[in-house]
Amino acid sequence: MADVKLYGIPLSTYVRTARLALEEKGVAYDNIPIPPGTPDIAPHHPFGRVPGFEHGGFKLYETSAICRYVDEVFPGPAIAPKEPKARALMEQWISAISCYYDSTVTRVVIFERLVAPMFGNPTNEQRIKENLDVVGKRLDILNGALSGRKFLAGDSISIADLFLLPIMFYLELTPEKSLLAACPNIRRWYDSMASRPSFAKTVPQFPPKR
Amino acid sequence: MADVKLYGIPLSTYVRTARLALEEKGVAYDNIPIPPGTPDIAPHHPFGRVPGFEHGGFKLYETSAICRYVDEVFPGPAIAPKEPKARALMEQWISAISCYYDSTVTRVVIFERLVAPMFGNPTNEQRIKENLDVVGKRLDILNGALSGRKFLAGDSISIADLFLLPIMFYLELTPEKSLLAACPNIRRWYDSMASRPSFAKTVPQFPPKR
Repeated sequence: MADVKLYGIPLSTYVRTARLALEEKGVAYDNIPIPPGTPDIAPHHPFGRVPGFEHGGFKLYETSAICRYVDEVFPGPAIAPKEPKARALMEQWISAISCYYDSTVTRVVIFERLVAPMFGNPTNEQRIKENLDVVGKRLDILNGALSGRKFLAGDSISIADLFLLPIMFYLELTPEKSLLAACPNIRRWYDSMASRPSFAKTVPQFPPKR
Repeated sequence: MADVKLYGIPLSTYVRTARLALEEKGVAYDNIPIPPGTPDIAPHHPFGRVPGFEHGGFKLYETSAICRYVDEVFPGPAIAPKEPKARALMEQWISAISCYYDSTVTRVVIFERLVAPMFGNPTNEQRIKENLDVVGKRLDILNGALSGRKFLAGDSISIADLFLLPIMFYLELTPEKSLLAACPNIRRWYDSMASRPSFAKTVPQFPPKR
């Protein structure tokens, strides 16, 4: 048993973000695959979400807190810049991805294309259609942010990239990946992120085995 | 003109959080009161929200990024703990307040009681009734988190407290403040926060002048 435990199903984009942080830092951990909204997750996340985290008795929840904690207390390559302006950009994008991309790319496109069918429900095409314009505009903003820089916070990887990667991985499995044709900077960023060992080590089984 | 500019109406809980950070640090700033969702905010926040921020040509958005940047680059008392576990608790609560309290206390109770009437709309009592149980449970969790500690991240103030304060200020103006009768730790925390000079300096004019 590892000293670090991560509670939550690996299909969750947020669980994968925390796993990516642990892999990038080279930290050994056990992933206990508890679904959100279940009684079993309550001891690890008082709001019933995933992931929850434990390190030698210290319990923590919220992915952004887990990633920063992992970066600060474990050796291994930094996943947050030291310079204040670059750090600020990392923080800006962690928040923006959680607010403006989770609510559109994840909760509309990925939900309708991948999650609904997983539960035997049809994709609501109308809902995708109604949101396609805003999804496209948000991808444009992201494409602009990646112009002239390798990663969201500058020339080295940061926690912000780890928030974005699991969302883009799922978008790639939908017909709406066609929106990325107009976003060469996102494409370049994605290909670079997908070539890292942390990506392969955290690919979720999708669709999940029954 | 101050070197630091904060764009966004002072009625916004997020704008007030950023102002509280600037006041706690003793940083001079201009607050340019632009409403969210308007063409005027677009140059300062690509997603049309508030606040936007500028410091000597460096532009930034998202309140959590602004507060951390302000803490890191300006002298004045720290508003983030140095010790990793306390820092992690701060991060956890910044995220939890933005996710689980903004969506319930702010977007249900405060919206229906204070924002809807401001625009001449009636309060949807049914919506409040349907959400009262979850609001109560979330206040209980918060009350538990403040048990045996002065502030959310421990014994010194942090950015997490500055996220919570503007929400609690508005809750106090609604009949649902009665829920706080069962939350003595929140009451003690609120009274302590409300006695700080930063609170008085950032009280929004409510209801706003026409």
